[in-house]
Amino acid sequence: MTDINNPATEASQASHLYLDVGRQVAATVRAGQLRVGDRLPSVRRLAAQHRVSIATAVQAYRYLEEQRIVEARPKSGFFVAARPRELPEPQASRPPAAARFVTTPSLLREFIDEVSRPGVIALGAGMSDPALFPGQRLARLTASLARRHPALNVTYASHEPDSLQLRRAVARRAVDGGWQVHPDELQMTSGAMEALNLGLRAVGRPGDTIAVESPTYFMFMQMIENLGMKVLEIPTHPRTGISLEALDLATQRQGAVRAVLLVPTYSNPLGSVMPDENKRGIVELCQERGIQILESDVYGETGFNGERPLPLKAWDTTGNVLYCSSFSKTVAPGMRVGWISAGRYHREVHMLKLSCTIFTPQLPQMVLAEFLSNGGYEHHMRKLRAALAQQAERVSDVVAGSFPEGTSVTRPTGGYVMWVEMPEQVDAVELFRRARAERIVVAPGPLFTTTKRYGSCIRIAYGHPWTRAVQSAIERVGAIARTLADE
Amino acid sequence: MTDINNPATEASQASHLYLDVGRQVAATVRAGQLRVGDRLPSVRRLAAQHRVSIATAVQAYRYLEEQRIVEARPKSGFFVAARPRELPEPQASRPPAAARFVTTPSLLREFIDEVSRPGVIALGAGMSDPALFPGQRLARLTASLARRHPALNVTYASHEPDSLQLRRAVARRAVDGGWQVHPDELQMTSGAMEALNLGLRAVGRPGDTIAVESPTYFMFMQMIENLGMKVLEIPTHPRTGISLEALDLATQRQGAVRAVLLVPTYSNPLGSVMPDENKRGIVELCQERGIQILESDVYGETGFNGERPLPLKAWDTTGNVLYCSSFSKTVAPGMRVGWISAGRYHREVHMLKLSCTIFTPQLPQMVLAEFLSNGGYEHHMRKLRAALAQQAERVSDVVAGSFPEGTSVTRPTGGYVMWVEMPEQVDAVELFRRARAERIVVAPGPLFTTTKRYGSCIRIAYGHPWTRAVQSAIERVGAIARTLADE
Repeated sequence: MTDINNPATEASQASHLYLDVGRQVAATVRAGQLRVGDRLPSVRRLAAQHRVSIATAVQAYRYLEEQRIVEARPKSGFFVAARPRELPEPQASRPPAAARFVTTPSLLREFIDEVSRPGVIALGAGMSDPALFPGQRLARLTASLARRHPALNVTYASHEPDSLQLRRAVARRAVDGGWQVHPDELQMTSGAMEALNLGLRAVGRPGDTIAVESPTYFMFMQMIENLGMKVLEIPTHPRTGISLEALDLATQRQGAVRAVLLVPTYSNPLGSVMPDENKRGIVELCQERGIQILESDVYGETGFNGERPLPLKAWDTTGNVLYCSSFSKTVAPGMRVGWISAGRYHREVHMLKLSCTIFTPQLPQMVLAEFLSNGGYEHHMRKLRAALAQQAERVSDVVAGSFPEGTSVTRPTGGYVMWVEMPEQVDAVELFRRARAERIVVAPGPLFTTTKRYGSCIRIAYGHPWTRAVQSAIERVGAIARTLADE
Repeated sequence: MTDINNPATEASQASHLYLDVGRQVAATVRAGQLRVGDRLPSVRRLAAQHRVSIATAVQAYRYLEEQRIVEARPKSGFFVAARPRELPEPQASRPPAAARFVTTPSLLREFIDEVSRPGVIALGAGMSDPALFPGQRLARLTASLARRHPALNVTYASHEPDSLQLRRAVARRAVDGGWQVHPDELQMTSGAMEALNLGLRAVGRPGDTIAVESPTYFMFMQMIENLGMKVLEIPTHPRTGISLEALDLATQRQGAVRAVLLVPTYSNPLGSVMPDENKRGIVELCQERGIQILESDVYGETGFNGERPLPLKAWDTTGNVLYCSSFSKTVAPGMRVGWISAGRYHREVHMLKLSCTIFTPQLPQMVLAEFLSNGGYEHHMRKLRAALAQQAERVSDVVAGSFPEGTSVTRPTGGYVMWVEMPEQVDAVELFRRARAERIVVAPGPLFTTTKRYGSCIRIAYGHPWTRAVQSAIERVGAIARTLADE
């Protein structure tokens, strides 16, 4: 079927009449002129009202059905559909208060094998569809800059600074967001993951304990494991993020925690956003206790309503926060360009960069600098945020309509993912395996912890443009979960 | 002055008459028709012989002077110049037999600051001039592929395999070199440095001891330090590389050494090449003792005479060798594309890649695949090897002519660098600092060890096209060294 909500294809269909008609009907429903259960005009009448053909009116209703705005009742016509029930949010997590070494669970390997298989519907993969990004624009810039600067691909830039134009553009985005970073403080990296690796290596040593949100992104735990460090999971609220009280308790003994690694804004997998008060609080607490903060802000600019929450770095007055971000979730998922503003660890991070990947290629840096400087960015981000918002709503609705009684789900206001907590009889790993047999991949909760928790949770990403296949896949997962709840 | 030996500029001058004339004279000298000290025809006579203008004949002699083939004697004319004396080679190294933790020497920071400063002549930096690489060709391929595949920059390829076309091209190069690697065994990386990092993390743990050549590339030691591992330096011969006998002794106690990290072909900084017999020997020794080998083969295809020594991997029958290489020293110093064939650690290395930089961008991979598949590669490499060979000879000659009595120097047959061992009165760090004051940067020997050795050694790279400035810089370093030798 057609990706109705895919901005790229939508543009080419904008002239289609049925969309105009469908949208006018949707608008009257949203405005409350028609209520749930109200009957809509017949196809013939709709055609006459809008002076379109019968075929166009049929198409308009089909569109409204796909949008779950109307429903067809056999032999009766079209009616305003009920908005699905809104599910409750999960409670705050309560992981045990002991640090532990991570060991790569075989489940993670299973999961990674599955998402890599061609033809699967990867509901669990925290990535977004290429159609949501400015591929054509970046391709043109790449072509033009490559031709204008043929030395870029052949210059071994181990001792050359990163693109100043890009560092300035990043600094300007910060100012637009209400905080400050100086271009000289920025080290470009191969994505935010490398930035976090460098930061963690700069502040910690093998054996050190790193505090994280619980649940947390599985690759963070892998990274910590691979550096020989330990993970301490801190209770985290699905709406307000990591618990300051719990972190306070966990860090009272000096040396118990070396650093905190977290995503304060639109976290993964919960989608939580720490309130400003908590952000200031955690910066002060960590500063006072000599604990460094590794902040990933990769989702910071994806707020659905355009709001741009401040990063922790905005409250950092002593260079104790190592701020990491990238363009992978906003502009260019395939270019691997990120950065770190490492505060007083800047020099150390630069040395580490030299011994890890030496330098970040210059051509993609210049492409991004151009894109950010020449006005395409804001327009693109508005479209991306709108698409993510719409897709998140769809996923929520279908989850609400198809998952078993007792399910709760987070209500992200930005980012790529939501967290679904099912009744405890539902074994998420079993769910993952049964869905896999139908070529649908969800991310089971145990991936996101070093503990035995989250056995009935899954992460679902909404970066995929809404299609009937995606909708059916979520419904199937819901159906399997219902079966498991009853077994 | 003009970069006579720079292939890029040479091409545009190829039609110049003076070069033809100069080369013909050089050929007669090389053929032995004229001997050292023989007088050459006067300018007028040369012009008449070759039916060129006086100005062209003067230019031809100037060219021959720059090439150090003739010398002008005031009021007497031009004579065949003496080939500079050939210096002896250094002895094999004898580092102490104890493993130790590396600590970032402040000297390394000093060195890195210096090479980064604009306007310096970075004799010590192991990189090659962009003019020696196919920048225009890569730029055109980048432009064309970016336009044809606009999704590449916006596809988050965390779960997509690396470019099959590139992996096949790399495997084909191996076959051409007389050994084999399967495309499925290749993991692309952000250069060889990332490949080695991943390999080292796959086989070792903090506290493990890694055996290396002595002297060895300083960034290898940084990498080992940053992973919390220890370095054990093994005696190494400037021509035949790491000593098998010494490695045998060092590894007799089980667990004493976790892995060996080395550059068996055209090593850095010595330029040594292990004989095939030693290569087979080290593979067997390590296999037998359960020690993994991390092999960097980044210079493997740069042999001056076109010879392609086999990598250790060619003798590996059990997947015990983790083979790392890249295009950074051969084709595209600015693209950061390398690879690892990790043998039985393939799976583990892939997981590590996900938690370090997630994936290697696809566009540069496709650009390189095209370049390798469509015939440009061989032609380019012939030019690069010839340029490196010529530049290495020039550097050798100038070192021989200007460094103090008692200096020895390696005679690399491939790679980018040579190792100069001066009389022991010469303090290489002092030499580095005095040269720095004249905006010339050499790499002092103590950078290449964890011990107190190599205090009178420096590394000089010959990747820079030969210019009068480069020549003068080497001569100045030689003069400072002579002063230090006498102080």
